[in-house]
Amino acid sequence: MAKLQAEQGFIRAVPLGEDVARRICETCGFIDYENPKIVVGSVGYWQDRLLLCRRAINPSKGKWTLPAGYLELNEAAETGARREAWEEARASLEIEQLLGIYSIAEISQIQLIYRARLLSADVSPGPGTLELALFDWNDIPWDQLAFPSVGWALNHYRESRDLSAFAPFDTPDR
Amino acid sequence: MAKLQAEQGFIRAVPLGEDVARRICETCGFIDYENPKIVVGSVGYWQDRLLLCRRAINPSKGKWTLPAGYLELNEAAETGARREAWEEARASLEIEQLLGIYSIAEISQIQLIYRARLLSADVSPGPGTLELALFDWNDIPWDQLAFPSVGWALNHYRESRDLSAFAPFDTPDR
Repeated sequence: MAKLQAEQGFIRAVPLGEDVARRICETCGFIDYENPKIVVGSVGYWQDRLLLCRRAINPSKGKWTLPAGYLELNEAAETGARREAWEEARASLEIEQLLGIYSIAEISQIQLIYRARLLSADVSPGPGTLELALFDWNDIPWDQLAFPSVGWALNHYRESRDLSAFAPFDTPDR
Repeated sequence: MAKLQAEQGFIRAVPLGEDVARRICETCGFIDYENPKIVVGSVGYWQDRLLLCRRAINPSKGKWTLPAGYLELNEAAETGARREAWEEARASLEIEQLLGIYSIAEISQIQLIYRARLLSADVSPGPGTLELALFDWNDIPWDQLAFPSVGWALNHYRESRDLSAFAPFDTPDR
C-alpha cells in the first residue's frame, strides 16, 4: 500500500463539465466530493434532570455537551443518536421525537437532536467523556457549554417539555 | 493538473490506528472518509394540487419525483430545499414545516422533506426535469414514482395536511 500521509497535494479547481470548484488530488486526479455532515444527538431526561457530558477531547475539551456525534455510514438517524448516548454516557434511551434540526451552514453541519427518555439513571462516562451528570434545570452550567447548539437544544427541550407532539425547532437566529 | 479520471485505484482497508475499513487510494494513500449524505426536498402544494417532476436523468429517468437533491456545502437545509425546487421546477416556495425525516441506511442517506406552499402556480421544468405537473391527489401516478420515499412523503403530506404543527414522520417500516 502507498504511504498513508495526512497531507496530500490537493488543489481546488473546477473539474471538466462541472461548475463548482472541488478538492482535486494533484498526484492522481481524485476528486474529493465534500458533503455536509450529519450530527445526531439527544437531550436525555431522567425525571426532571438532563444528561450532560464533559468532553475529554477537543474541540471544547472540558466543557459540557449533549451526547452527540457524526452519523455513521449505513446507520439510521435515531440509531446513531442511541449509539452516541451509549458511547459517551453508557446511557440507554427511548427516543421520543425530533426536538431540533439545526443547520450550521458555516461548518456544513446538519444537527438532528432528539428528545429522549433515559431508561435508567445508571449512566457512566465513555471514552470521550471526562465526567457526566444529570442536571436540574437551575444547575445547568450555561457558561461552560461546549457548543451553541447545546444551549439551543436545552432551551428547546424546556419550551416543548409538556408537549406530546410538536414541530421540531429550527436553528435560532444568531 | 493530473488526469481527471473516473476510476481510481481504491482499495478498502483499515488505516493505522483506526478500527473501520476506509476507501484508500493505492496511488497516493489518500483516505476517503465517506459520510452519509443529506437529501433535501419538498412536497410543494398549490391549492389542492401537488408538484411532481418527471426526471430527465438516471436513476429512475422518466419517473416522477419531488423536487429534491443533495444538500450542498455551507447550505442550510431549508435553503437547499428551496434551491432544488427552483433548479428542478422553477418553483418558489414558502417552507412550512419538516414533513418527514427518512433514514435510508442501506444507501447512507438522510432525507429531509418539507411541506411547502408554492408561491405561484407558474412553474416550469429545469434542466433535470423532462416535464412537471400539479397533480390532484387522485391523479398522482403512483405506479410511476421514482423512489419509495416520494410515495412516503406524499402520503405523509396527506395525513398531516390539516395540521398546523406536528411531529415529522419517520421512515415507514419496509
